[in-house]
Amino acid sequence: MKGNSTILVTGGAGYVGSHTVVELLKNNYTVIAIDNLVNCYAKNNNEKPEALKRVERITGEKVIFYNVDIRDKEALDKVFKSHKIDSVIHFAALKAVGESVKIPLTYYQNNIGGSGTLFEVMGNNGVKKLVFSSSATVYGTPQFLPITEDHPTGQGCTNPYGKTKYFVEEILKDLCTSDSEWKVILLRYFNPVGAHESGLIGEDPSGIPNNLMPYISQVAVGRRDKLQVFGNDYPTPDGTGVRDYIHITDLAIGHLKALEKMLQPTFTSWKAYNLGTGCGYSVLDVVKAFEKASGKQVKYEIVGRREGDIAECYADASVAKRELNWTAKKDILSMCQDTWNWQQKNPKGFQSPCQGC
Amino acid sequence: MKGNSTILVTGGAGYVGSHTVVELLKNNYTVIAIDNLVNCYAKNNNEKPEALKRVERITGEKVIFYNVDIRDKEALDKVFKSHKIDSVIHFAALKAVGESVKIPLTYYQNNIGGSGTLFEVMGNNGVKKLVFSSSATVYGTPQFLPITEDHPTGQGCTNPYGKTKYFVEEILKDLCTSDSEWKVILLRYFNPVGAHESGLIGEDPSGIPNNLMPYISQVAVGRRDKLQVFGNDYPTPDGTGVRDYIHITDLAIGHLKALEKMLQPTFTSWKAYNLGTGCGYSVLDVVKAFEKASGKQVKYEIVGRREGDIAECYADASVAKRELNWTAKKDILSMCQDTWNWQQKNPKGFQSPCQGC
Repeated sequence: MKGNSTILVTGGAGYVGSHTVVELLKNNYTVIAIDNLVNCYAKNNNEKPEALKRVERITGEKVIFYNVDIRDKEALDKVFKSHKIDSVIHFAALKAVGESVKIPLTYYQNNIGGSGTLFEVMGNNGVKKLVFSSSATVYGTPQFLPITEDHPTGQGCTNPYGKTKYFVEEILKDLCTSDSEWKVILLRYFNPVGAHESGLIGEDPSGIPNNLMPYISQVAVGRRDKLQVFGNDYPTPDGTGVRDYIHITDLAIGHLKALEKMLQPTFTSWKAYNLGTGCGYSVLDVVKAFEKASGKQVKYEIVGRREGDIAECYADASVAKRELNWTAKKDILSMCQDTWNWQQKNPKGFQSPCQGC
Repeated sequence: MKGNSTILVTGGAGYVGSHTVVELLKNNYTVIAIDNLVNCYAKNNNEKPEALKRVERITGEKVIFYNVDIRDKEALDKVFKSHKIDSVIHFAALKAVGESVKIPLTYYQNNIGGSGTLFEVMGNNGVKKLVFSSSATVYGTPQFLPITEDHPTGQGCTNPYGKTKYFVEEILKDLCTSDSEWKVILLRYFNPVGAHESGLIGEDPSGIPNNLMPYISQVAVGRRDKLQVFGNDYPTPDGTGVRDYIHITDLAIGHLKALEKMLQPTFTSWKAYNLGTGCGYSVLDVVKAFEKASGKQVKYEIVGRREGDIAECYADASVAKRELNWTAKKDILSMCQDTWNWQQKNPKGFQSPCQGC
């Protein structure tokens, strides 16, 4: 018998979703995970996705799973009618920046339309507590560093993916203004990397990775020839772009802390929190740390800057520390070690059994 | 036999929609109008809305009408499959600022979700030319006056209605970036007022009017006791708020000109145009003009400022003049005369036969 309440996790089979489900289960929450399986591996549509099977292996707890798309109002409603859901953690979204420029409407329909449908069904079922998976991308080009939560949002969000995060934040704020029963926490992630220390779950990008760490990892394992570093003439210590990387387990625990905060009777309306370490690492810092963690050389070449990239971006994470009693604990070496551990044990991601787990 | 192409007009039975349909019919376009009838009067769901019957009376031309909600993908698709539609003029939206604060999700689902569905169905049917009914509200609190089209948008849009206009503009811009076949004109209206000179069609607000002109008109006709003027301590000539009112027929012709512009082979991607007169009139200016036009006294009282209101807002309409060969022709007196004519002939709006038409 679980002691804590029941949490619906949308996009529960994804990278951040699955790691968060681990922390929820470890803390005695009952978890209902839904996912439309577009970005995760399952043997077939009727089976629990492999990531969630591994979550169950890590925790020894069961996850209730439904293959449901958040745009499907009837299916969503059925899930709410079948369980006594207390709160929702909402991850489900398309998330590739480059792809969002090519098929913006798909991104808007999925991320905004789908979120709207979710909020509508939640409201209809009297569930009005939500933790939203947002992103530091809502800040656009930083006007100052480190970025605090009161940095302007929505200005200079140059790609549809980023705009969908910003727009959903605005919808949630307006929802809280309209109805005092809604309680919402917006979590603005910096750059999630790494994997669960067990090596059982991690980031499993399909095709060419969009992000630095999985790319480096695939170079180290020999799956890709070399890393392209986009620009070494930025005004940073070594000229390459500086970002705030955060270990996925720290990030997942941040969701747990946000949930606890939101469930306090004194919490009302909405609040945004940055989830980052507050430390900036350059591309070359990450390459070096990864080489140390893996014992492999990571070949790279410097190429031109990539349009839309900024020199530096890192968080002021002091509000989360003060109000959520949360700080990121794991350093860049640990992020690289866990990425490498996941990569070695799962060279094909979730499609083959974990090797040596 | 019509000489010009077939235009789908969403929200075609509404205030701006119906006046625009008149101008399209007068210029030999075939018009397919769709409307979900939430904001217009029809005897029953299967009948053509009264506004469109009167449009037919004004023009002597037929309008093809479907009772279709833009959120209904299948029904929309059927309309596109049944006609050879060349372009779309998209008005369908909820539009009451105050209501949008109370039921934001309904506004987001209708205005953004519905627009997304429309664009999706358009794309699927190879129709990629659109004139969008936007609003000067996308400029938020003016940073300078008169407002030009390159004034920043999306900053300080304080209500959900305004945000939906801004968000849909952004979606359309991203759509044009993603696919060069899309051609889009965003028309940013200032304050549409007045009615068709025939007195057959006009603004027919349900309940208490949200806007100044229909309110004044209902005071003049004795339906309401007096006008409340929100603040007379603004830094304007007489202390009351100054706005750029534009006659609905001028606005409608603006849509025709935008359509012609968009249909030119040289037009690519998207472009925004202000539709306003460029002249600012204060609340008391409008009261005086209305008294002159109607011969009736308009009682008013000064009350406190209303939250979110700004002192002044008026357009730089020179780009529309230069590129669309369009300027507003009708002055404030004409706007008041036509409003009064409509009000007198239709004291109950569209629900009773037009008196003396």
